[in-house]
Amino acid sequence: MFREDLLLTNATGKRLYERYAKDLPVIDYHCHLLPGEIYENREFEDIGEMWLAHDHYKWRAMRCFGIPERYITGDATYYEKYLKFAEILPELVGNPLYIWCALELKRYFDIEEALNRDNAAEIYRRCKEKIVKCHMTPLYCMKVSRVELACTTEDPTDTLIYHRKMQEQGTEGIRIISAFRPDKAFYAEKPGFAQYMKRLSDAAGMPVGSFREMMAALESRLKFFRETGSMISDNGIEDFTWQDYTAEEIEAIFARAAAGEALDTAEINRYRSAFLTEAGRMYHRNGFVMQLHIGTYQGANRSREADIGAACGFDCTDDSTFVKSVGKLLDRLNSEEALPKTILYPLNAGQMENFAILAAGFCEGPERGKVQLGAPWWFNDQAYGIKRQFEAAANLYPVALSVGMLTDSRSFISYPRHELYRRVLCNYFGELVERGEYISGEEELARVIRNVCHDNARNYFGL
Amino acid sequence: MFREDLLLTNATGKRLYERYAKDLPVIDYHCHLLPGEIYENREFEDIGEMWLAHDHYKWRAMRCFGIPERYITGDATYYEKYLKFAEILPELVGNPLYIWCALELKRYFDIEEALNRDNAAEIYRRCKEKIVKCHMTPLYCMKVSRVELACTTEDPTDTLIYHRKMQEQGTEGIRIISAFRPDKAFYAEKPGFAQYMKRLSDAAGMPVGSFREMMAALESRLKFFRETGSMISDNGIEDFTWQDYTAEEIEAIFARAAAGEALDTAEINRYRSAFLTEAGRMYHRNGFVMQLHIGTYQGANRSREADIGAACGFDCTDDSTFVKSVGKLLDRLNSEEALPKTILYPLNAGQMENFAILAAGFCEGPERGKVQLGAPWWFNDQAYGIKRQFEAAANLYPVALSVGMLTDSRSFISYPRHELYRRVLCNYFGELVERGEYISGEEELARVIRNVCHDNARNYFGL
Amino acid sequence: MFREDLLLTNATGKRLYERYAKDLPVIDYHCHLLPGEIYENREFEDIGEMWLAHDHYKWRAMRCFGIPERYITGDATYYEKYLKFAEILPELVGNPLYIWCALELKRYFDIEEALNRDNAAEIYRRCKEKIVKCHMTPLYCMKVSRVELACTTEDPTDTLIYHRKMQEQGTEGIRIISAFRPDKAFYAEKPGFAQYMKRLSDAAGMPVGSFREMMAALESRLKFFRETGSMISDNGIEDFTWQDYTAEEIEAIFARAAAGEALDTAEINRYRSAFLTEAGRMYHRNGFVMQLHIGTYQGANRSREADIGAACGFDCTDDSTFVKSVGKLLDRLNSEEALPKTILYPLNAGQMENFAILAAGFCEGPERGKVQLGAPWWFNDQAYGIKRQFEAAANLYPVALSVGMLTDSRSFISYPRHELYRRVLCNYFGELVERGEYISGEEELARVIRNVCHDNARNYFGL
Repeated sequence: MFREDLLLTNATGKRLYERYAKDLPVIDYHCHLLPGEIYENREFEDIGEMWLAHDHYKWRAMRCFGIPERYITGDATYYEKYLKFAEILPELVGNPLYIWCALELKRYFDIEEALNRDNAAEIYRRCKEKIVKCHMTPLYCMKVSRVELACTTEDPTDTLIYHRKMQEQGTEGIRIISAFRPDKAFYAEKPGFAQYMKRLSDAAGMPVGSFREMMAALESRLKFFRETGSMISDNGIEDFTWQDYTAEEIEAIFARAAAGEALDTAEINRYRSAFLTEAGRMYHRNGFVMQLHIGTYQGANRSREADIGAACGFDCTDDSTFVKSVGKLLDRLNSEEALPKTILYPLNAGQMENFAILAAGFCEGPERGKVQLGAPWWFNDQAYGIKRQFEAAANLYPVALSVGMLTDSRSFISYPRHELYRRVLCNYFGELVERGEYISGEEELARVIRNVCHDNARNYFGL
Repeated sequence: MFREDLLLTNATGKRLYERYAKDLPVIDYHCHLLPGEIYENREFEDIGEMWLAHDHYKWRAMRCFGIPERYITGDATYYEKYLKFAEILPELVGNPLYIWCALELKRYFDIEEALNRDNAAEIYRRCKEKIVKCHMTPLYCMKVSRVELACTTEDPTDTLIYHRKMQEQGTEGIRIISAFRPDKAFYAEKPGFAQYMKRLSDAAGMPVGSFREMMAALESRLKFFRETGSMISDNGIEDFTWQDYTAEEIEAIFARAAAGEALDTAEINRYRSAFLTEAGRMYHRNGFVMQLHIGTYQGANRSREADIGAACGFDCTDDSTFVKSVGKLLDRLNSEEALPKTILYPLNAGQMENFAILAAGFCEGPERGKVQLGAPWWFNDQAYGIKRQFEAAANLYPVALSVGMLTDSRSFISYPRHELYRRVLCNYFGELVERGEYISGEEELARVIRNVCHDNARNYFGL
Repeated sequence: MFREDLLLTNATGKRLYERYAKDLPVIDYHCHLLPGEIYENREFEDIGEMWLAHDHYKWRAMRCFGIPERYITGDATYYEKYLKFAEILPELVGNPLYIWCALELKRYFDIEEALNRDNAAEIYRRCKEKIVKCHMTPLYCMKVSRVELACTTEDPTDTLIYHRKMQEQGTEGIRIISAFRPDKAFYAEKPGFAQYMKRLSDAAGMPVGSFREMMAALESRLKFFRETGSMISDNGIEDFTWQDYTAEEIEAIFARAAAGEALDTAEINRYRSAFLTEAGRMYHRNGFVMQLHIGTYQGANRSREADIGAACGFDCTDDSTFVKSVGKLLDRLNSEEALPKTILYPLNAGQMENFAILAAGFCEGPERGKVQLGAPWWFNDQAYGIKRQFEAAANLYPVALSVGMLTDSRSFISYPRHELYRRVLCNYFGELVERGEYISGEEELARVIRNVCHDNARNYFGL
């Protein structure tokens, strides 16, 4: 049965969580929710849809267990997919999916039993009942979880039509904004770059025949995002090696890429260095936070991605970006007094400490935590990864300054990840207290907890 | 005194270990035992021989303590060597050798005292008594440890004479097979490659004048291994950088290597990429599991290796293989539907999570755990490394699918490493239960334990 | 309130610490104290000076919290700086600064309360009282902490005037020596190299017109250091890629560097390989220990370093040195029987295990721990990093052989870092005992503790 002392192994931690963390609202400043689904606010079909329509974490686990693709992304019904997933759940011991599912059943459906093959049909039915009875929709779930703000992530050419409609009509007190994500312009070497330049030109109503013009068009779109309330950018970076460049070199590389020609490694590195430098300047000019998501290995399993699609569970991690490349970017911007607030999200767990150290090296007044190590992300966003980051990074970058957790999710019932984070945070602080490593008053810790779980994000993003 | 609650720090873990793990038989699917010694099944001389005849872990530790080489690999007697080792044992606090030795004394000799300088002579005598009384031989030790199968590792040119004899004569119910290890053909740049091609040609009874012919000869030998019951390959990979290649380039590189010419880095990388691709296709065609042991730094201390020998404790770890190189190999094979079952063993602990993620990205039905993260290996195969792998990898790759532990050992009394692994596994599961992170029934956990400790290996390798 | 059971979470660990570790003297074989300040032995002005005059750890933390530079390295008074720091201290939960400060207040000022904004003025006053009453000076603090030896670090051109004076006049029984740190000669590509060659020539009284002459001048200075009692070298290495070289190539590179010309990457790598090889030979010839501090990213934030200064908190970590480069250096020296005692300090935590393994691979008699993994250093020198190193490295390199902790500090009240290290060591050993992983007698552990905390350093450095 689900236990309310989940992960709280010491008395201090339990008290801290209950008193100071549990009831705080959620600011979810990075997620992959589809704005159209929020706007539409349709009642969910069943727990099968809620769990398995978009969640590539679950798809990936199901493939590990050898389940046929038909029950993963194929044409089986959501009920059939749910049954297959329920079968493997008891074997997912130690995996975050296990405890996320338990938390989601408890928090949204009041189900405390562990799901398995035997009770799967009954639990399905109870979930369905609750969905119908409560008219369970995206906004319903967000309200249950005390979400104040959710920030989706969109391409610069996006019209943000749903965001604007929601702002006009209201979304039951929940603020929905969009982060500016110019990845398609960043990956000049990928197929489709030339067509994307055309789309960008159309969206911005400006010619895009050069790198300079591309950046101007992006800035025009950034201002449009800002008008809808955005102040955050997302920058997905597979791997990155800084390479010095001249404006002329970049224009020549742009011209080749826009003509559909292949770029070599040195050209790609130069282009990426120039792009991130210009983007950083642009974010700084426009008061945006720069989020760098570093170290994905997109579509590692290319043949399956080609068959089934992108973001379907075939992405892995890259470990070839040296911290100095990112350091050179930050230094270049800082030397021009053009470094925006920046959050570094290394995906490669082995580099987390190096990036925490780098972030601290670029902090300065008057901002609190101007450059930050981001929350443990994607493959690192479980109890183990969260605790490891607290333990390791507290030594290198003050945890008290962190803007806290995000879901990074495509699901409307993934907010218990914030709960998990808070439990681990409070338990970690409790351990420090019980080992004599923290001797200040509880009101000091309470303030830190409130800051990390809520207030830091509000202040940092200027909400 | 030795304690039967070793490493079991929580009540659930203790119960899980006692009830479900302790008595399971052992499938040791990767070791370095010498088949001739198993076949001969000679009574051991003394504990000195059993501990110090082959074990470079102990040799390495003794060198750290400044013990002269004469007592390590030199001409001192086994008794003298044993005494020197016994002297440092109490100082090996925290080192796996310490607890392995304690377990070995307990399980094979019923000795519970901690060995030290003072009781070394007496313990030596008691061990000797037991050896004589029980007629302690390799097969005796394997039976005491409930070994069902042991898989040694041999060169493709090996006649497998002892394996075949043992299959004819029987080995007291223990199955002894061999893994196919084509490292000498993989390292085209190393001295002796040309001579090895000659040996391979002789062994296969086929000309080996080209890369294509070499692969054909290897496949002929692979089929020979299969006839003796083998279905596993071992591939030792120091470092690996994927580099695209053409068949013509590879033939030119082969010709240069076979002529004894030096290869440059790009040539080595191309050759290795081609070799592993062809080997993977061959394993897939023949129903073999591909084991990749990645990241050794063979003979780092070359001058001492030259004096004393290979595999004598001078090997270290390499940290220069990026995960994407292995990813490209898997992707290339997968895109041709030629990816065999594969186990990835990164030796560099800092990359374990990246390889766990990569493995999951290539899993698919109908296999359970088609591509796996291998057991913590060599420098990682102690309680700390095992627990870390469970904690970190459970989040990234389902532990429940693991084919479990192996000894990787040259010793007939190293099976307690399986015991250690099982203790750590059960204690880890116990912790999850006690923290509320696992709420399914105990019969579910029991099934997972049985799978990881035994059944998964049986099913995966098709035993 | 400060607790004397700090970090001691098990009964065995508490007992081990109290009985065997607590009262041992301190050998601080690597620090950045200024010899002039020790010689002068001036009474401290206040706790503000003691904490904030030199400590870039605190400066870095203050910048993270957005405190203006005026209160960090600027012209605010020490009292004002102290107040700003006291304000953020309660938020430094989990950071080593928090517990270091608590330990320093307790051990030097008998203050047990947690410092915060409210009691900052009163605690300042009490510290000031104690400073005056006890005439608190550098040597006073060192005596309170039972320091036997402190080793500062100086450039080869240094006159060691204060060291020599102190040796003549005595320093209340505390031995003060200097480590030889030839970094300015190592970084041939950095500005000022040519001028430095002139200074070196003057200091040595020898011409320095070639690489060969430079090494001769360095050796002449090394002998001078030895005359003042030095037997230790420090070698700061940002990043290092081994590259084979010829003597002619190195002379050509030297000539270009001495002429102020820019070096390319291959030239830098060749020069560094040659320099470290020659330095290693020189240390071996002269009986010096070679300490390699690997993986700094000096002045990552170059624009702020340019404004505020070097070693002011803008340094980060580099993760681009592969372990094999250091391995090739050790192997080259070993193959000539010219490998000195060596301590490897990787700054990148993710490589700690690889370097532990490498160190063990080069150990041999008659030395105990001839090549060592150094103490967790700089960004790794807190309870978490120390424990991680014990847990991980004990498996790879015997902890019992370690020469133990160092402060690496610029502060005269940083010796509680040795206390912290001892607490973590004893608690770790206690955990092993309580889990049944160590079953030898307590006197064996007591000996290991005494060795690691004191005797190993004395014997290794030949004090």
